[in-house]
Amino acid sequence: MRNIRLKIEYDGTNYNGWQTQNNKNRARPQNTIQQTIETVLSSILQEHIKLIGSGRTDSGVHSLGQTANFKTKSEISLKQIQRALNGLLPKDIVIVSVKETSLNFHSRFDALSKTYCYQILNCPHASAFNRLYQYHIPYKLDHKLMQKAARVLIGRKDFRSFQASDKRDRSSIRNIKKLSVKKQGHIIAIDIEADGFLYNMVRNIVGTLIEIGRGKLGPESIGDILNAKDRKRAGPTAPAKGLCLMQVKYQRD
Amino acid sequence: MRNIRLKIEYDGTNYNGWQTQNNKNRARPQNTIQQTIETVLSSILQEHIKLIGSGRTDSGVHSLGQTANFKTKSEISLKQIQRALNGLLPKDIVIVSVKETSLNFHSRFDALSKTYCYQILNCPHASAFNRLYQYHIPYKLDHKLMQKAARVLIGRKDFRSFQASDKRDRSSIRNIKKLSVKKQGHIIAIDIEADGFLYNMVRNIVGTLIEIGRGKLGPESIGDILNAKDRKRAGPTAPAKGLCLMQVKYQRD
Repeated sequence: MRNIRLKIEYDGTNYNGWQTQNNKNRARPQNTIQQTIETVLSSILQEHIKLIGSGRTDSGVHSLGQTANFKTKSEISLKQIQRALNGLLPKDIVIVSVKETSLNFHSRFDALSKTYCYQILNCPHASAFNRLYQYHIPYKLDHKLMQKAARVLIGRKDFRSFQASDKRDRSSIRNIKKLSVKKQGHIIAIDIEADGFLYNMVRNIVGTLIEIGRGKLGPESIGDILNAKDRKRAGPTAPAKGLCLMQVKYQRD
Repeated sequence: MRNIRLKIEYDGTNYNGWQTQNNKNRARPQNTIQQTIETVLSSILQEHIKLIGSGRTDSGVHSLGQTANFKTKSEISLKQIQRALNGLLPKDIVIVSVKETSLNFHSRFDALSKTYCYQILNCPHASAFNRLYQYHIPYKLDHKLMQKAARVLIGRKDFRSFQASDKRDRSSIRNIKKLSVKKQGHIIAIDIEADGFLYNMVRNIVGTLIEIGRGKLGPESIGDILNAKDRKRAGPTAPAKGLCLMQVKYQRD
Protein backbone atom coordinates (compact mmCIF):
# COMPACT_ATOMS: atom_id res chain seq x y z
CA MET A 1 0.00 0.00 0.00
CA ARG A 2 1.24 3.50 -0.84
CA ASN A 3 0.07 6.90 0.42
CA ILE A 4 0.23 9.55 -2.33
CA ARG A 5 0.08 13.27 -1.73
CA LEU A 6 -1.16 15.74 -4.34
CA LYS A 7 -0.80 19.51 -4.58
CA ILE A 8 -3.77 20.82 -6.56
CA GLU A 9 -4.46 24.09 -8.35
CA TYR A 10 -8.03 24.82 -9.39
CA ASP A 11 -10.32 27.48 -10.72
CA GLY A 12 -13.36 26.93 -8.50
CA THR A 13 -15.78 28.88 -10.73
CA ASN A 14 -17.50 25.89 -12.26
CA TYR A 15 -17.62 23.61 -9.20
CA ASN A 16 -19.79 23.17 -6.13
CA GLY A 17 -16.73 23.52 -3.93
CA TRP A 18 -14.07 20.99 -3.00
CA GLN A 19 -15.92 18.52 -0.92
CA THR A 20 -18.45 15.89 -1.83
CA GLN A 21 -21.37 15.85 0.59
CA ASN A 22 -21.70 12.40 2.13
CA ASN A 23 -24.92 12.77 4.06
CA LYS A 24 -27.56 12.96 1.36
CA ASN A 25 -28.26 12.08 -2.27
CA ARG A 26 -25.08 10.10 -2.44
CA ALA A 27 -26.21 8.41 -5.60
CA ARG A 28 -26.60 11.69 -7.46
CA PRO A 29 -23.30 12.86 -8.99
CA GLN A 30 -22.05 16.06 -7.40
CA ASN A 31 -19.96 18.50 -9.34
CA THR A 32 -17.22 18.87 -6.75
CA ILE A 33 -13.47 19.07 -7.26
CA GLN A 34 -12.90 16.13 -4.90
CA GLN A 35 -15.30 13.92 -6.84
CA THR A 36 -13.92 14.97 -10.22
CA ILE A 37 -10.38 13.96 -9.16
CA GLU A 38 -11.56 10.76 -7.41
CA THR A 39 -13.35 9.61 -10.55
CA VAL A 40 -10.30 10.15 -12.76
CA LEU A 41 -7.92 8.60 -10.18
CA SER A 42 -10.14 5.52 -9.78
CA SER A 43 -10.17 5.08 -13.54
CA ILE A 44 -6.36 5.47 -13.86
CA LEU A 45 -5.56 3.15 -10.93
CA GLN A 46 -8.41 0.70 -11.53
CA GLU A 47 -9.46 0.71 -7.89
CA HIS A 48 -11.87 2.77 -5.79
CA ILE A 49 -9.95 5.82 -4.59
CA LYS A 50 -10.96 7.95 -1.62
CA LEU A 51 -9.28 11.36 -1.66
CA ILE A 52 -8.68 13.22 1.62
CA GLY A 53 -8.39 16.97 1.23
CA SER A 54 -6.81 19.39 3.74
CA GLY A 55 -10.28 20.89 4.09
CA ARG A 56 -13.21 22.11 2.09
CA THR A 57 -13.30 25.19 -0.09
CA ASP A 58 -16.67 26.73 -0.95
CA SER A 59 -18.30 26.94 -4.33
CA GLY A 60 -16.41 29.53 -6.42
CA VAL A 61 -13.32 29.58 -4.15
CA HIS A 62 -10.02 28.88 -5.92
CA SER A 63 -6.78 27.11 -5.01
CA LEU A 64 -3.11 27.35 -5.76
CA GLY A 65 -2.09 25.03 -2.93
CA GLN A 66 -4.84 22.59 -1.93
CA THR A 67 -3.28 19.39 -0.61
CA ALA A 68 -4.90 15.96 -0.67
CA ASN A 69 -3.80 12.36 -0.20
CA PHE A 70 -5.03 8.91 -1.14
CA LYS A 71 -3.98 5.30 -0.62
CA THR A 72 -3.47 2.87 -3.45
CA LYS A 73 -2.17 -0.63 -4.10
CA SER A 74 -1.10 0.41 -7.59
CA GLU A 75 2.58 0.51 -8.46
CA ILE A 76 2.25 3.06 -11.25
CA SER A 77 5.02 5.66 -11.03
CA LEU A 78 4.33 9.13 -9.60
CA LYS A 79 5.22 10.75 -12.93
CA GLN A 80 2.73 8.52 -14.75
CA ILE A 81 0.02 9.35 -12.22
CA GLN A 82 0.61 13.09 -12.67
CA ARG A 83 0.71 12.87 -16.45
CA ALA A 84 -2.46 10.76 -16.61
CA LEU A 85 -4.31 13.01 -14.16
CA ASN A 86 -3.41 16.23 -16.00
CA GLY A 87 -4.26 14.58 -19.30
CA LEU A 88 -7.70 13.42 -18.18
CA LEU A 89 -8.83 16.14 -15.75
CA PRO A 90 -10.72 19.20 -17.00
CA LYS A 91 -8.37 22.13 -17.71
CA ASP A 92 -9.53 24.09 -14.65
CA ILE A 93 -7.99 21.49 -12.31
CA VAL A 94 -4.20 21.01 -12.44
CA ILE A 95 -2.11 18.58 -10.40
CA VAL A 96 1.01 20.59 -9.55
CA SER A 97 2.89 17.81 -7.77
CA VAL A 98 2.57 14.13 -6.85
CA LYS A 99 4.70 12.74 -4.00
CA GLU A 100 4.83 9.56 -2.00
CA THR A 101 4.44 10.16 1.71
CA SER A 102 4.42 8.10 4.91
CA LEU A 103 1.45 5.77 5.33
CA ASN A 104 0.14 7.70 8.35
CA PHE A 105 0.11 11.13 6.66
CA HIS A 106 -3.37 12.71 6.68
CA SER A 107 -3.97 15.91 4.68
CA ARG A 108 -6.51 17.30 7.13
CA PHE A 109 -5.34 16.14 10.56
CA ASP A 110 -1.66 16.87 9.92
CA ALA A 111 -2.13 20.40 8.57
CA LEU A 112 -0.35 22.96 10.77
CA SER A 113 -1.75 26.01 9.03
CA LYS A 114 -3.49 27.23 5.93
CA THR A 115 -2.90 30.47 4.08
CA TYR A 116 -5.60 32.18 2.04
CA CYS A 117 -5.39 35.26 -0.14
CA TYR A 118 -8.37 37.50 -0.85
CA GLN A 119 -8.08 39.85 -3.83
CA ILE A 120 -10.03 43.08 -4.22
CA LEU A 121 -9.89 45.13 -7.41
CA ASN A 122 -10.31 48.70 -6.16
CA CYS A 123 -10.80 50.99 -9.13
CA PRO A 124 -13.75 52.63 -10.91
CA HIS A 125 -14.16 50.04 -13.67
CA ALA A 126 -14.10 46.25 -13.47
CA SER A 127 -11.61 43.93 -15.21
CA ALA A 128 -12.67 41.81 -18.19
CA PHE A 129 -10.06 39.22 -17.23
CA ASN A 130 -10.03 38.81 -13.48
CA ARG A 131 -13.79 39.04 -12.99
CA LEU A 132 -13.84 35.47 -11.62
CA TYR A 133 -10.81 35.90 -9.33
CA GLN A 134 -11.20 39.33 -7.80
CA TYR A 135 -13.97 41.21 -6.00
CA HIS A 136 -14.45 44.53 -7.76
CA ILE A 137 -15.18 47.48 -5.47
CA PRO A 138 -15.57 50.77 -7.38
CA TYR A 139 -15.58 53.12 -4.36
CA LYS A 140 -12.28 54.02 -2.72
CA LEU A 141 -11.03 51.83 0.13
CA ASP A 142 -8.43 53.04 2.63
CA HIS A 143 -6.17 50.00 2.87
CA LYS A 144 -4.18 51.55 5.73
CA LEU A 145 -7.26 51.62 7.95
CA MET A 146 -7.92 48.01 6.92
CA GLN A 147 -4.36 47.04 7.83
CA LYS A 148 -4.67 48.80 11.19
CA ALA A 149 -7.85 46.88 12.03
CA ALA A 150 -6.41 43.61 10.73
CA ARG A 151 -3.59 43.72 13.29
CA VAL A 152 -6.13 43.45 16.14
CA LEU A 153 -7.24 40.03 14.86
CA ILE A 154 -3.79 38.43 14.96
CA GLY A 155 -3.29 35.81 17.68
CA ARG A 156 -5.24 33.07 19.45
CA LYS A 157 -8.78 34.39 19.87
CA ASP A 158 -12.44 33.45 19.84
CA PHE A 159 -13.64 34.27 16.30
CA ARG A 160 -17.32 33.46 16.87
CA SER A 161 -18.32 36.88 15.45
CA PHE A 162 -16.79 35.85 12.13
CA GLN A 163 -18.31 32.39 11.94
CA ALA A 164 -21.26 31.67 9.61
CA SER A 165 -24.32 32.02 11.87
CA ASP A 166 -25.82 28.69 10.78
CA LYS A 167 -22.64 26.67 11.36
CA ARG A 168 -21.12 25.73 14.70
CA ASP A 169 -17.75 24.18 15.22
CA ARG A 170 -17.11 22.66 18.64
CA SER A 171 -14.80 25.56 19.47
CA SER A 172 -14.61 28.94 17.76
CA ILE A 173 -11.08 29.62 19.03
CA ARG A 174 -8.48 29.83 16.27
CA ASN A 175 -4.93 31.19 16.00
CA ILE A 176 -4.37 33.75 13.24
CA LYS A 177 -0.61 33.70 12.66
CA LYS A 178 -0.43 36.31 9.91
CA LEU A 179 -2.88 38.83 8.54
CA SER A 180 -1.81 41.58 6.19
CA VAL A 181 -3.52 44.05 3.89
CA LYS A 182 -1.36 45.24 1.01
CA LYS A 183 -2.09 47.48 -1.95
CA GLN A 184 -0.29 47.17 -5.28
CA GLY A 185 -1.69 49.21 -8.13
CA HIS A 186 -5.45 48.74 -8.06
CA ILE A 187 -5.25 45.42 -6.17
CA ILE A 188 -5.77 45.13 -2.43
CA ALA A 189 -4.56 41.71 -1.31
CA ILE A 190 -5.51 40.35 2.11
CA ASP A 191 -3.26 37.46 3.18
CA ILE A 192 -4.29 35.40 6.17
CA GLU A 193 -2.63 32.39 7.79
CA ALA A 194 -4.22 30.46 10.66
CA ASP A 195 -4.07 27.04 12.27
CA GLY A 196 -7.62 26.58 11.03
CA PHE A 197 -10.65 28.54 9.92
CA LEU A 198 -14.29 28.55 10.97
CA TYR A 199 -16.91 28.29 8.24
CA ASN A 200 -16.85 31.54 6.18
CA MET A 201 -14.33 33.08 8.60
CA VAL A 202 -12.01 34.55 5.96
CA ARG A 203 -14.86 35.98 3.89
CA ASN A 204 -16.52 37.46 7.01
CA ILE A 205 -13.24 39.05 8.15
CA VAL A 206 -12.73 40.46 4.64
CA GLY A 207 -16.31 41.78 4.54
CA THR A 208 -15.71 43.54 7.86
CA LEU A 209 -12.36 44.99 6.75
CA ILE A 210 -14.10 46.36 3.63
CA GLU A 211 -16.66 48.16 5.85
CA ILE A 212 -13.71 49.69 7.69
CA GLY A 213 -11.89 50.57 4.47
CA ARG A 214 -14.89 52.46 3.12
CA GLY A 215 -15.41 54.29 6.42
CA LYS A 216 -18.67 52.66 7.48
CA LEU A 217 -16.96 51.31 10.60
CA GLY A 218 -14.02 52.80 12.47
CA PRO A 219 -10.83 50.69 12.61
CA GLU A 220 -11.15 50.53 16.42
CA SER A 221 -14.56 48.83 16.14
CA ILE A 222 -12.93 45.54 15.18
CA GLY A 223 -12.05 44.86 18.85
CA ASP A 224 -15.68 45.38 19.91
CA ILE A 225 -16.91 43.11 17.12
CA LEU A 226 -14.45 40.41 18.19
CA ASN A 227 -15.49 40.68 21.85
CA ALA A 228 -19.22 40.64 21.07
CA LYS A 229 -18.97 37.02 19.81
CA ASP A 230 -22.00 37.78 17.68
CA ARG A 231 -22.05 37.27 13.89
CA LYS A 232 -24.56 40.12 13.51
CA ARG A 233 -21.96 42.67 14.61
CA ALA A 234 -19.45 41.87 11.83
CA GLY A 235 -19.67 42.96 8.18
CA PRO A 236 -21.26 41.02 5.31
CA THR A 237 -19.67 37.91 3.81
CA ALA A 238 -17.36 38.87 0.92
CA PRO A 239 -18.02 36.97 -2.35
CA ALA A 240 -16.33 33.59 -2.83
CA LYS A 241 -14.65 34.41 -6.13
CA GLY A 242 -12.01 36.72 -4.54
CA LEU A 243 -10.73 33.93 -2.31
CA CYS A 244 -7.88 31.53 -3.04
CA LEU A 245 -6.30 28.82 -0.85
CA MET A 246 -2.58 29.53 -1.30
CA GLN A 247 -0.76 27.03 0.90
CA VAL A 248 -1.23 24.25 3.44
CA LYS A 249 1.72 23.81 5.79
CA TYR A 250 2.76 20.50 7.36
CA GLN A 251 5.38 19.57 9.95
CA ARG A 252 7.71 17.77 7.57
CA ASP A 253 7.59 19.96 4.47
CA MET B 1 -22.74 65.70 -33.88
CA ARG B 2 -20.10 64.34 -31.49
CA ASN B 3 -17.28 61.87 -32.09
CA ILE B 4 -16.73 59.61 -29.06
CA ARG B 5 -13.64 57.50 -28.48
CA LEU B 6 -13.65 54.33 -26.37
CA LYS B 7 -10.83 52.33 -24.85
CA ILE B 8 -11.99 48.73 -24.54
CA GLU B 9 -10.76 45.77 -22.51
CA TYR B 10 -12.09 42.34 -23.44
CA ASP B 11 -11.64 38.66 -22.84
CA GLY B 12 -11.97 37.37 -26.41
CA THR B 13 -12.59 33.74 -25.39
CA ASN B 14 -16.32 33.73 -26.05
CA TYR B 15 -16.40 35.88 -29.20
CA ASN B 16 -15.82 35.43 -32.92
CA GLY B 17 -13.25 38.20 -32.83
CA TRP B 18 -13.67 41.96 -32.89
CA GLN B 19 -15.06 42.62 -36.27
CA THR B 20 -18.48 41.98 -37.74
CA GLN B 21 -18.25 40.55 -41.24
CA ASN B 22 -20.13 42.77 -43.65
CA ASN B 23 -19.97 40.73 -46.81
CA LYS B 24 -22.32 37.85 -46.08
CA ASN B 25 -25.24 36.78 -43.90
CA ARG B 26 -25.61 40.27 -42.58
CA ALA B 27 -29.06 39.45 -41.24
CA ARG B 28 -27.73 36.65 -39.03
CA PRO B 29 -26.47 37.99 -35.68
CA GLN B 30 -22.72 37.50 -35.30
CA ASN B 31 -21.18 37.06 -31.91
CA THR B 32 -18.46 39.68 -32.31
CA ILE B 33 -17.23 42.25 -29.82
CA GLN B 34 -17.96 45.10 -32.23
CA GLN B 35 -21.55 43.99 -32.69
CA THR B 36 -22.10 43.40 -28.98
CA ILE B 37 -21.01 46.97 -28.19
CA GLU B 38 -22.88 48.48 -31.16
CA THR B 39 -26.12 46.84 -30.04
CA VAL B 40 -25.81 48.16 -26.47
CA LEU B 41 -24.72 51.64 -27.67
CA SER B 42 -27.62 51.88 -30.11
CA SER B 43 -30.03 50.98 -27.33
CA ILE B 44 -28.52 53.53 -24.90
CA LEU B 45 -28.37 56.38 -27.44
CA GLN B 46 -31.59 55.46 -29.27
CA GLU B 47 -29.97 55.77 -32.68
CA HIS B 48 -28.16 53.39 -35.02
CA ILE B 49 -24.49 53.42 -33.97
CA LYS B 50 -21.61 52.32 -36.21
CA LEU B 51 -18.45 51.58 -34.23
CA ILE B 52 -15.06 51.94 -35.93
CA GLY B 53 -12.31 49.85 -34.30
CA SER B 54 -8.55 50.39 -34.67
CA GLY B 55 -8.49 47.00 -36.38
CA ARG B 56 -9.72 43.47 -36.04
CA THR B 57 -8.63 40.97 -33.46
CA ASP B 58 -9.18 37.28 -34.17
CA SER B 59 -11.47 34.89 -32.35
CA GLY B 60 -9.96 34.18 -28.92
CA VAL B 61 -7.56 37.16 -28.98
CA HIS B 62 -7.85 39.52 -26.00
CA SER B 63 -7.52 43.25 -25.49
CA LEU B 64 -6.40 45.65 -22.83
CA GLY B 65 -6.23 48.65 -25.17
CA GLN B 66 -8.52 48.29 -28.19
CA THR B 67 -9.64 51.74 -29.34
CA ALA B 68 -12.84 52.50 -31.22
CA ASN B 69 -14.91 55.58 -32.07
CA PHE B 70 -18.47 56.38 -33.07
CA LYS B 71 -20.51 59.42 -33.99
CA THR B 72 -23.73 60.38 -32.23
CA LYS B 73 -26.24 63.21 -32.05
CA SER B 74 -26.98 62.34 -28.45
CA GLU B 75 -26.05 64.81 -25.70
CA ILE B 76 -25.77 62.20 -22.95
CA SER B 77 -22.66 62.85 -20.82
CA LEU B 78 -19.53 60.74 -21.26
CA LYS B 79 -19.82 59.46 -17.67
CA GLN B 80 -23.37 58.31 -18.29
CA ILE B 81 -22.36 56.56 -21.51
CA GLN B 82 -19.57 54.69 -19.71
CA ARG B 83 -21.76 53.75 -16.77
CA ALA B 84 -24.61 52.55 -19.00
CA LEU B 85 -22.23 50.58 -21.24
CA ASN B 86 -20.48 48.83 -18.36
CA GLY B 87 -23.84 48.15 -16.74
CA LEU B 88 -25.37 46.57 -19.84
CA LEU B 89 -22.39 44.88 -21.54
CA PRO B 90 -21.45 41.29 -20.67
CA LYS B 91 -18.79 41.14 -17.93
CA ASP B 92 -16.05 40.05 -20.36
CA ILE B 93 -16.17 43.43 -22.13
CA VAL B 94 -15.23 46.53 -20.10
CA ILE B 95 -15.17 50.14 -21.30
CA VAL B 96 -12.05 51.57 -19.65
CA SER B 97 -12.50 55.15 -20.85
CA VAL B 98 -14.89 57.33 -22.85
CA LYS B 99 -13.60 60.60 -24.34
CA GLU B 100 -14.87 63.16 -26.79
CA THR B 101 -12.52 63.64 -29.73
CA SER B 102 -12.33 65.80 -32.86
CA LEU B 103 -14.93 65.03 -35.51
CA ASN B 104 -12.30 63.85 -38.00
CA PHE B 105 -10.64 61.31 -35.65
CA HIS B 106 -10.71 57.79 -37.11
CA SER B 107 -9.61 54.85 -34.90
CA ARG B 108 -8.17 52.86 -37.79
CA PHE B 109 -6.71 55.44 -40.17
CA ASP B 110 -5.18 57.62 -37.43
CA ALA B 111 -3.43 54.79 -35.56
CA LEU B 112 0.36 55.30 -35.53
CA SER B 113 1.18 51.93 -34.02
CA LYS B 114 -0.23 48.97 -32.19
CA THR B 115 1.40 46.96 -29.44
CA TYR B 116 0.59 43.32 -28.81
CA CYS B 117 1.81 41.02 -26.05
CA TYR B 118 2.00 37.25 -26.45
CA GLN B 119 2.25 35.21 -23.26
CA ILE B 120 3.75 31.73 -23.05
CA LEU B 121 3.61 29.67 -19.87
CA ASN B 122 6.83 27.66 -19.98
CA CYS B 123 6.75 25.04 -17.23
CA PRO B 124 5.94 21.34 -16.98
CA HIS B 125 2.32 21.71 -15.82
CA ALA B 126 -0.39 24.04 -17.08
CA SER B 127 -2.17 26.73 -15.06
CA ALA B 128 -5.76 26.27 -13.95
CA PHE B 129 -6.25 30.05 -14.05
CA ASN B 130 -4.50 31.43 -17.10
CA ARG B 131 -5.45 28.61 -19.46
CA LEU B 132 -7.41 31.07 -21.64
CA TYR B 133 -4.73 33.80 -21.64
CA GLN B 134 -1.44 31.96 -22.03
CA TYR B 135 -0.06 29.32 -24.39
CA HIS B 136 1.30 26.48 -22.27
CA ILE B 137 4.50 24.91 -23.56
CA PRO B 138 5.79 22.13 -21.27
CA TYR B 139 9.22 21.65 -22.93
CA LYS B 140 12.00 24.09 -22.14
CA LEU B 141 12.37 27.16 -24.35
CA ASP B 142 15.60 29.17 -24.51
CA HIS B 143 14.25 32.73 -24.38
CA LYS B 144 17.71 34.18 -25.05
CA LEU B 145 17.84 32.49 -28.45
CA MET B 146 14.34 33.79 -29.11
CA GLN B 147 15.41 37.32 -28.16
CA LYS B 148 18.46 37.05 -30.42
CA ALA B 149 16.31 36.05 -33.39
CA ALA B 150 13.66 38.66 -32.58
CA ARG B 151 16.18 41.49 -33.00
CA VAL B 152 16.59 40.57 -36.69
CA LEU B 153 12.91 41.36 -37.33
CA ILE B 154 13.03 44.93 -36.01
CA GLY B 155 12.70 47.65 -38.63
CA ARG B 156 10.91 48.33 -41.91
CA LYS B 157 10.85 45.03 -43.79
CA ASP B 158 8.78 42.81 -46.02
CA PHE B 159 7.02 40.36 -43.69
CA ARG B 160 5.37 38.24 -46.38
CA SER B 161 6.81 35.05 -44.81
CA PHE B 162 4.77 35.80 -41.68
CA GLN B 163 1.50 36.61 -43.41
CA ALA B 164 -1.38 34.11 -43.43
CA SER B 165 -1.04 32.29 -46.76
CA ASP B 166 -4.70 32.77 -47.71
CA LYS B 167 -4.72 36.53 -47.03
CA ARG B 168 -3.03 39.21 -49.09
CA ASP B 169 -2.68 42.84 -48.12
CA ARG B 170 -1.73 45.26 -50.89
CA SER B 171 1.76 45.56 -49.39
CA SER B 172 3.45 43.19 -46.96
CA ILE B 173 5.95 45.82 -45.81
CA ARG B 174 5.57 46.83 -42.18
CA ASN B 175 7.73 48.61 -39.64
CA ILE B 176 8.36 46.71 -36.38
CA LYS B 177 9.37 49.39 -33.91
CA LYS B 178 9.90 47.17 -30.88
CA LEU B 179 10.15 43.45 -30.39
CA SER B 180 11.33 41.93 -27.13
CA VAL B 181 11.30 38.50 -25.52
CA LYS B 182 11.41 38.57 -21.74
CA LYS B 183 11.20 35.83 -19.14
CA GLN B 184 9.81 36.36 -15.65
CA GLY B 185 9.29 33.25 -13.58
CA HIS B 186 7.59 30.71 -15.84
CA ILE B 187 6.19 33.37 -18.20
CA ILE B 188 7.83 34.27 -21.49
CA ALA B 189 6.31 37.54 -22.74
CA ILE B 190 6.82 38.63 -26.34
CA ASP B 191 6.04 42.35 -26.82
CA ILE B 192 5.77 43.67 -30.34
CA GLU B 193 4.97 47.16 -31.61
CA ALA B 194 4.52 47.97 -35.29
CA ASP B 195 2.86 50.56 -37.51
CA GLY B 196 0.55 47.78 -38.63
CA PHE B 197 0.31 44.01 -38.81
CA LEU B 198 -0.44 41.59 -41.62
CA TYR B 199 -3.08 38.96 -40.99
CA ASN B 200 -1.74 36.46 -38.38
CA MET B 201 1.66 38.21 -38.43
CA VAL B 202 2.17 38.29 -34.65
CA ARG B 203 1.07 34.69 -34.17
CA ASN B 204 3.30 33.52 -37.05
CA ILE B 205 6.31 35.40 -35.67
CA VAL B 206 5.65 33.90 -32.23
CA GLY B 207 5.26 30.41 -33.71
CA THR B 208 8.64 30.83 -35.44
CA LEU B 209 10.34 32.17 -32.31
CA ILE B 210 9.03 29.12 -30.41
CA GLU B 211 10.66 26.81 -33.00
CA ILE B 212 13.91 28.68 -32.35
CA GLY B 213 13.46 28.57 -28.57
CA ARG B 214 13.05 24.80 -28.60
CA GLY B 215 16.06 24.33 -30.89
CA LYS B 216 14.22 23.15 -34.00
CA LEU B 217 15.54 26.15 -35.91
CA GLY B 218 18.76 28.07 -35.30
CA PRO B 219 18.40 31.74 -34.32
CA GLU B 220 20.23 32.75 -37.52
CA SER B 221 17.58 31.08 -39.68
CA ILE B 222 15.15 33.95 -39.03
CA GLY B 223 16.95 36.12 -41.60
CA ASP B 224 16.63 33.40 -44.28
CA ILE B 225 12.93 32.97 -43.45
CA LEU B 226 12.37 36.73 -43.77
CA ASN B 227 14.22 36.89 -47.10
CA ALA B 228 12.38 33.88 -48.54
CA LYS B 229 9.05 35.81 -48.52
CA ASP B 230 7.34 32.44 -48.27
CA ARG B 231 4.87 31.54 -45.49
CA LYS B 232 5.89 27.87 -45.70
CA ARG B 233 9.37 28.68 -44.38
CA ALA B 234 8.17 30.18 -41.07
CA GLY B 235 6.92 28.26 -38.02
CA PRO B 236 3.32 27.34 -37.25
CA THR B 237 0.73 29.92 -36.14
CA ALA B 238 0.72 30.21 -32.34
CA PRO B 239 -2.75 29.84 -30.72
CA ALA B 240 -4.93 32.96 -30.45
CA LYS B 241 -5.50 32.73 -26.69
CA GLY B 242 -1.94 33.85 -25.79
CA LEU B 243 -2.34 37.12 -27.69
CA CYS B 244 -3.51 40.46 -26.28
CA LEU B 245 -3.77 43.88 -27.96
CA MET B 246 -2.13 46.12 -25.37
CA GLN B 247 -2.15 49.63 -26.83
CA VAL B 248 -3.01 51.66 -29.91
CA LYS B 249 -0.98 54.86 -30.26
CA TYR B 250 -2.25 58.05 -31.92
CA GLN B 251 -0.58 61.33 -32.78
CA ARG B 252 -2.36 63.42 -30.17
CA ASP B 253 -2.45 61.11 -27.15
